[in-house]
Amino acid sequence: MKLWAGRFRKPTAADTEEFNASIQFDYRLWREDIDGSLAHVNMLAAAGILSETEANKITGGLNEIGAEIEQGQFKFSSDREDIHMHIEQRLIEKIGPLGGKVHIARSRNDQVALDTHLYVRRQTGKVLGQITTLQHTLICFAETHLDIIMPGYTHLQHAQPILLAHHLLAYVHMLQRDRQRFMGCLERADMMPLGAGALAGTSFPIDQQLVADKLGFSRLYENSLDAVSDRDYILEFLAAAAICMVHLSRLAEELILWSSQEFGFIELDDAYSTGSSIMPQKKNPDILELIRGKTGRVAGHLVALLVTMKGLPLAYNKDMQEDKEGLFDTVDTLTACLAIMAAMIPTIKVNRSRMRQAVSGDFSTATDLADYLARRGLPFRQAHVVIGKLVQFCLDQNKVLEELSLEELQRVSPLFKPDVLEFLRPEAAVAARTSYGGTAPEQVRQQLARLKKTIALDRKPSQPQ
Amino acid sequence: MKLWAGRFRKPTAADTEEFNASIQFDYRLWREDIDGSLAHVNMLAAAGILSETEANKITGGLNEIGAEIEQGQFKFSSDREDIHMHIEQRLIEKIGPLGGKVHIARSRNDQVALDTHLYVRRQTGKVLGQITTLQHTLICFAETHLDIIMPGYTHLQHAQPILLAHHLLAYVHMLQRDRQRFMGCLERADMMPLGAGALAGTSFPIDQQLVADKLGFSRLYENSLDAVSDRDYILEFLAAAAICMVHLSRLAEELILWSSQEFGFIELDDAYSTGSSIMPQKKNPDILELIRGKTGRVAGHLVALLVTMKGLPLAYNKDMQEDKEGLFDTVDTLTACLAIMAAMIPTIKVNRSRMRQAVSGDFSTATDLADYLARRGLPFRQAHVVIGKLVQFCLDQNKVLEELSLEELQRVSPLFKPDVLEFLRPEAAVAARTSYGGTAPEQVRQQLARLKKTIALDRKPSQPQ
Amino acid sequence: MKLWAGRFRKPTAADTEEFNASIQFDYRLWREDIDGSLAHVNMLAAAGILSETEANKITGGLNEIGAEIEQGQFKFSSDREDIHMHIEQRLIEKIGPLGGKVHIARSRNDQVALDTHLYVRRQTGKVLGQITTLQHTLICFAETHLDIIMPGYTHLQHAQPILLAHHLLAYVHMLQRDRQRFMGCLERADMMPLGAGALAGTSFPIDQQLVADKLGFSRLYENSLDAVSDRDYILEFLAAAAICMVHLSRLAEELILWSSQEFGFIELDDAYSTGSSIMPQKKNPDILELIRGKTGRVAGHLVALLVTMKGLPLAYNKDMQEDKEGLFDTVDTLTACLAIMAAMIPTIKVNRSRMRQAVSGDFSTATDLADYLARRGLPFRQAHVVIGKLVQFCLDQNKVLEELSLEELQRVSPLFKPDVLEFLRPEAAVAARTSYGGTAPEQVRQQLARLKKTIALDRKPSQPQ
Amino acid sequence: MKLWAGRFRKPTAADTEEFNASIQFDYRLWREDIDGSLAHVNMLAAAGILSETEANKITGGLNEIGAEIEQGQFKFSSDREDIHMHIEQRLIEKIGPLGGKVHIARSRNDQVALDTHLYVRRQTGKVLGQITTLQHTLICFAETHLDIIMPGYTHLQHAQPILLAHHLLAYVHMLQRDRQRFMGCLERADMMPLGAGALAGTSFPIDQQLVADKLGFSRLYENSLDAVSDRDYILEFLAAAAICMVHLSRLAEELILWSSQEFGFIELDDAYSTGSSIMPQKKNPDILELIRGKTGRVAGHLVALLVTMKGLPLAYNKDMQEDKEGLFDTVDTLTACLAIMAAMIPTIKVNRSRMRQAVSGDFSTATDLADYLARRGLPFRQAHVVIGKLVQFCLDQNKVLEELSLEELQRVSPLFKPDVLEFLRPEAAVAARTSYGGTAPEQVRQQLARLKKTIALDRKPSQPQ
Repeated sequence: MKLWAGRFRKPTAADTEEFNASIQFDYRLWREDIDGSLAHVNMLAAAGILSETEANKITGGLNEIGAEIEQGQFKFSSDREDIHMHIEQRLIEKIGPLGGKVHIARSRNDQVALDTHLYVRRQTGKVLGQITTLQHTLICFAETHLDIIMPGYTHLQHAQPILLAHHLLAYVHMLQRDRQRFMGCLERADMMPLGAGALAGTSFPIDQQLVADKLGFSRLYENSLDAVSDRDYILEFLAAAAICMVHLSRLAEELILWSSQEFGFIELDDAYSTGSSIMPQKKNPDILELIRGKTGRVAGHLVALLVTMKGLPLAYNKDMQEDKEGLFDTVDTLTACLAIMAAMIPTIKVNRSRMRQAVSGDFSTATDLADYLARRGLPFRQAHVVIGKLVQFCLDQNKVLEELSLEELQRVSPLFKPDVLEFLRPEAAVAARTSYGGTAPEQVRQQLARLKKTIALDRKPSQPQ
Repeated sequence: MKLWAGRFRKPTAADTEEFNASIQFDYRLWREDIDGSLAHVNMLAAAGILSETEANKITGGLNEIGAEIEQGQFKFSSDREDIHMHIEQRLIEKIGPLGGKVHIARSRNDQVALDTHLYVRRQTGKVLGQITTLQHTLICFAETHLDIIMPGYTHLQHAQPILLAHHLLAYVHMLQRDRQRFMGCLERADMMPLGAGALAGTSFPIDQQLVADKLGFSRLYENSLDAVSDRDYILEFLAAAAICMVHLSRLAEELILWSSQEFGFIELDDAYSTGSSIMPQKKNPDILELIRGKTGRVAGHLVALLVTMKGLPLAYNKDMQEDKEGLFDTVDTLTACLAIMAAMIPTIKVNRSRMRQAVSGDFSTATDLADYLARRGLPFRQAHVVIGKLVQFCLDQNKVLEELSLEELQRVSPLFKPDVLEFLRPEAAVAARTSYGGTAPEQVRQQLARLKKTIALDRKPSQPQ
Repeated sequence: MKLWAGRFRKPTAADTEEFNASIQFDYRLWREDIDGSLAHVNMLAAAGILSETEANKITGGLNEIGAEIEQGQFKFSSDREDIHMHIEQRLIEKIGPLGGKVHIARSRNDQVALDTHLYVRRQTGKVLGQITTLQHTLICFAETHLDIIMPGYTHLQHAQPILLAHHLLAYVHMLQRDRQRFMGCLERADMMPLGAGALAGTSFPIDQQLVADKLGFSRLYENSLDAVSDRDYILEFLAAAAICMVHLSRLAEELILWSSQEFGFIELDDAYSTGSSIMPQKKNPDILELIRGKTGRVAGHLVALLVTMKGLPLAYNKDMQEDKEGLFDTVDTLTACLAIMAAMIPTIKVNRSRMRQAVSGDFSTATDLADYLARRGLPFRQAHVVIGKLVQFCLDQNKVLEELSLEELQRVSPLFKPDVLEFLRPEAAVAARTSYGGTAPEQVRQQLARLKKTIALDRKPSQPQ
Repeated sequence: MKLWAGRFRKPTAADTEEFNASIQFDYRLWREDIDGSLAHVNMLAAAGILSETEANKITGGLNEIGAEIEQGQFKFSSDREDIHMHIEQRLIEKIGPLGGKVHIARSRNDQVALDTHLYVRRQTGKVLGQITTLQHTLICFAETHLDIIMPGYTHLQHAQPILLAHHLLAYVHMLQRDRQRFMGCLERADMMPLGAGALAGTSFPIDQQLVADKLGFSRLYENSLDAVSDRDYILEFLAAAAICMVHLSRLAEELILWSSQEFGFIELDDAYSTGSSIMPQKKNPDILELIRGKTGRVAGHLVALLVTMKGLPLAYNKDMQEDKEGLFDTVDTLTACLAIMAAMIPTIKVNRSRMRQAVSGDFSTATDLADYLARRGLPFRQAHVVIGKLVQFCLDQNKVLEELSLEELQRVSPLFKPDVLEFLRPEAAVAARTSYGGTAPEQVRQQLARLKKTIALDRKPSQPQ
């Protein structure tokens, strides 16, 4: 019989039971559920609501159940709805009706809220750790490839030569903002909902601060309706994850492009590639494609919960049970993608000469020529036109900028002096971009140093439990 | 060793394998995969590419594997990537290297396309059947509650009295459009992709029409690149499902409202309700809330695949492997929601008197009064103002329209004659709406008759295999 | 004063008015609104509800208003809410209180439904026409570049050589399915809602079939609640548009890749490219990037309406007013993208030699070698391994397949005979893929012929009004 | 001629120009663009790149242009692409070729990034202010309705009696988290991108810190590629807005329910309601429905940008131009909804007696009876069953809990003593929920006091510029 079936005359229909049950996914919250119950029982004893003996028996029972689950000996059955009912009924089996007292001053509404807060807090900690690892990986890779020049792109057209290291560090900064967003999630998840009861609070003389202290929460919910109907921290986690996946999708896209025959900038390791069932020559960047593709599912989970939460009246509605699967899958997806990206990057082989070749004769120092003229007094817009026509001339003559003689240049503008030839070299173009955050080697080195300091600082406080 | 590992020097990293594998979800395509392979092998024999003996051995092996899977004796292991590799390697285990010949003139790209087409076709058939059932249920319910009057709402405010049956039939029409959309999906899924190979077609002298005939497909893909990179039929299925779920969410919302204490229009059956872990009096419409809430996940799956497919170059990319989980969950969700809605509706108890009471004194015949004046020559806009002021007068006097005397009415407009009193009754207001598709009982009866005919017609051809 | 203000004591707050108004976007429905009113008035006269004289005066007034709007002489003012109120109040200004009679037997709820149906029907017709044009453009382009060989890609890695024409025709098939989906939209939009009134039908003796005939609708709504609360046809249009945009985004992505320096397969025309404000050498595929990027907004509009419609009770709710802006923007976006893609494609210059070069020495005939062995009796899986090792050997020796001697081949497998050398040529690989829908020139030519026939057939009935 | 057209031979096609142009929406950034240019020019002079005289002339010109735009005298023309080109070309018209120097050491890529950062920062400040106002409004309303009891709902079923004030304060907490999220956005938007040039930095000796100081930015971008390709701060703004809209949709839903005839808990003011074009009695909560409905468009804009950004390679791609319209519309939507909600709430009339009536005889003190037994030693689960059966008994007898005699209660459990009768009163049930954040009046008063302190603190630093 259902624990809540007192006023019911008929049993639940079998299809209702199955449709309603959440045990097939919320079993994942078993540890959080037991942790929460332990803290709750401990508090009930401290508040004199349970005797020490009662509390000890319950605590013992809960710990045994935890061990059973951990060792795979716990029996899940579809008619016990959810992980909370499973654990409570097992407790009653073990220690008799006393087990029912674990639910004093508590409702499933605040209990599930507590479990999910604990889960999000723990997983966010894990994600933060993985972000740090990936950042570290990218920094190391950048550092060991510090002198490689490659084309910088806008519109996927060669724009200006840059350092490969500079390019990769851009992702470290994206990840740094991801970290900040997840820290924000953590802050919003760091609130203790127990004591809200079904929605209105409880009449038992409980001590919520004690529960919060035991579980390491910084704050209590200030409003019991809010405590049971808040799903912000999940929405925010999903949003942060979706943005982070967009970053990973961009990195994946670039690595896919770079490992194409046409670019040929990098080669993926055999260990992180796969073949074709039919084409013997194939070596495919499957992992990167999957990371890129999985951006979809995370965005989808965010949409799903936004749709679900839209227009729901207070306080708890069953719709909210739909918050979990998307959250779990997002955690699984994001942590898997962060981990495998971090594992794969160090195995990438860079084809330095293909990258260097690519900036030869690609007109990507044209801006430097325009800047040259601008610095010698020509309004930039006119300088731009002059160099545009020069490029057109080269295309017609099938020449590249590097092949132009000083005379040819001077025919276009008398402002060109012999020192201009230096500006045609990609190395010079890179070295010249000395603005803060620019691609000049000295700037990139400073950027690296600052990043390492920042990330070392982050590393410490970021992983709660 | 991987079947494709000839040119690889290093084994796949363990995390790559796990990340890449799809067996944890695509095992669901096992029957489709075997059906497809059987048809393929049969064709290879007919085309003389395999000998009869070879084909017979392979066919025997495949059938045995099918039986193994059906009986839960098949061993799935994470390093065999997907259901296709699982079955093929098992076949080789069973019948030796000959098993490899099943893959002649085929690639995983067209194989997975075939399996998914078969799956979508089959599941769409199931969905169509369930739509019919739910329509039928609603029609029966409407028919057995044909005389019940209730408030018709706009903006959740009483607008005009209507028949409950009329209200419910609106959902039958929505479902009818859902049916049409799923029929469209079926048409787009009804194309045979095998023979496209990896992307370019095959050089073996195959007979695709024969495969299509065996598997009951109406058409072949006309372009091999399209055959392996098309995911339209899945997107379209997801879109049709999302719209259908929106319909179910609207119905669920209404039934939730109607079963609130405030409305009190219906009572849910105990078998389709649940209780509270803490509040002994509660009887909650959990199922309806879940249906409403699950609209989110289906919309989310649609978004996920749109995001994934956006900007992918031809032909196959691994990102596309992400098409399946969302599809499977959408099928599971939609079919569960349709089934339980159809099971629950007949158990609903309607509180006829509460519904009738609700249209007493609610001013919902005001339009009829305005129409009365308009029909007697007052421009409708003026009639509207006159009745608006009359309502205001009643509110001030704490009266309802039904209590007004003829004199009071005539004070407002001399166009009112004794017959006006009849127009104040909700029954009259309902009976008067005789326009095609209106709520007048006669119209609703005709609507019912037409619907029954339509659905009887649909029932026949809608369920492929 | 508002037309509906009879029972109100206070005027609408100014911010309410502004927030509530839809005239800033629904003015776009002016022609549909007038067309609908003309048909309605005509019917009212035929039904004897208006006299001929009245109907003539109203018709005259409406036509004048249409002319005013067309010529930009109509004054829009924010306090008249929407296009319906604008036109009706202007009508009253012009012909006096009689103007109010246009609203007999009609509500804004069914009126706005009618207007939007007319709009969707018209715009879908336009979209269908543009799809045909783009298909035609692609077919012409394919036909005039019929002999060009390029690498076929999977995972953005060279897979097998294909014809450029074959590649491009894949998009014609995608567009063909888009057409079918839009035809489905058209069918669902082709229902006449007028007569539903606010929600329950009307008590006036109207003739809805007459209105439908005048406006060219095939069917009437069968249920008045459904008629005013149905937004399926818009959701379906948005879904079809989102899928179509995904197709365009894939084509755009490929053209962007192909016009990169690394691929160099095509050159965009100056007329369809743009430059950089700072880099004189740049020629950017802005248009293609915008098409790819605009996929987002259309998917967004679909999500927006799904969110909005979720959980709305019947019948009309003001939330539904949110259906229009996303629809309008989707129409604008899709028609602009289809048009500019069709205009740009014929101006693309193909670099035939770069494409041909790309299939030299790229191992993309490896499948043909494996097939060669398979056809000579080696199980395909073993053939695959043999060729995989051969590719590995070539990579180690820095050789390409074309450079292998017969002896070298035979060292790997004695099944190789002198005729194998032919199979190493990309032209042979292309020619060999003769399966239905394959890339063999003869197959592509047949595909072209079938497509031209299909599209010629479509062209006729696809454009309603 | 285009400013970038040096290397182009053909003019841009007219449709390209129109398709590509962003002036129709980015004109909204005019003030940010001028502010940014003024700071840039000022820095160029300080760095010696421009002479004082040049800088003064440019500054004068820019200020004049600002005035022209402000006064509506500026001419926008479609062939000048965007607001940046408009202002620069107008500057050249005004002060000659010198005007072109404004673009030294700058690209449109970093310029548009700067403008958008300024815009988001400013608008986020506005949103924060409005959130405070709405919180304040809700707090005032709660404070002036502090003693009103109403049913607390879960699953839209009466659960336990609560204070209306408590219910409304839940929204103040949601808004408080919205505030925190927008503060996070502000932090991420508070980075200065100028100096990144097209993507690689600039070779001019600029002083980015000076520009940042002038414009009030706290930090510089650390990586030039990141500076031009980062759209995180917009995604994050959209996500925060979508969550905030979900909150508003929930409040709107509740107010719509409460103003239905069935609930009758509140009456909206005439100034914030609208009528019907056909039903004279109607008073519709249009504004609330629109707020609820507009949740869709904001979620849609978030999806749109996620789709657009997915898989884009670095650095700038034209796709990113699609970031603006959704952002602008989100700002407009969110600020309008926050403003009108804050304006409307104080005008709501609460029907105190309907609310109180609703908690009579609704069994919502059943939990208190179960708690009563639990506190006297019965395990809670058994107490729950006992009271469940009691409720069932009442339903059968058509009684309410308040009508039960002590004997009837004791027949059910001997643990009931005379003091139990007190527990049947809703007032007692409310007063008993004294846990932290509970609905007991004393707790709600403390909650109010804490909230007022928090919000007073927030008020100060939250509005940048």
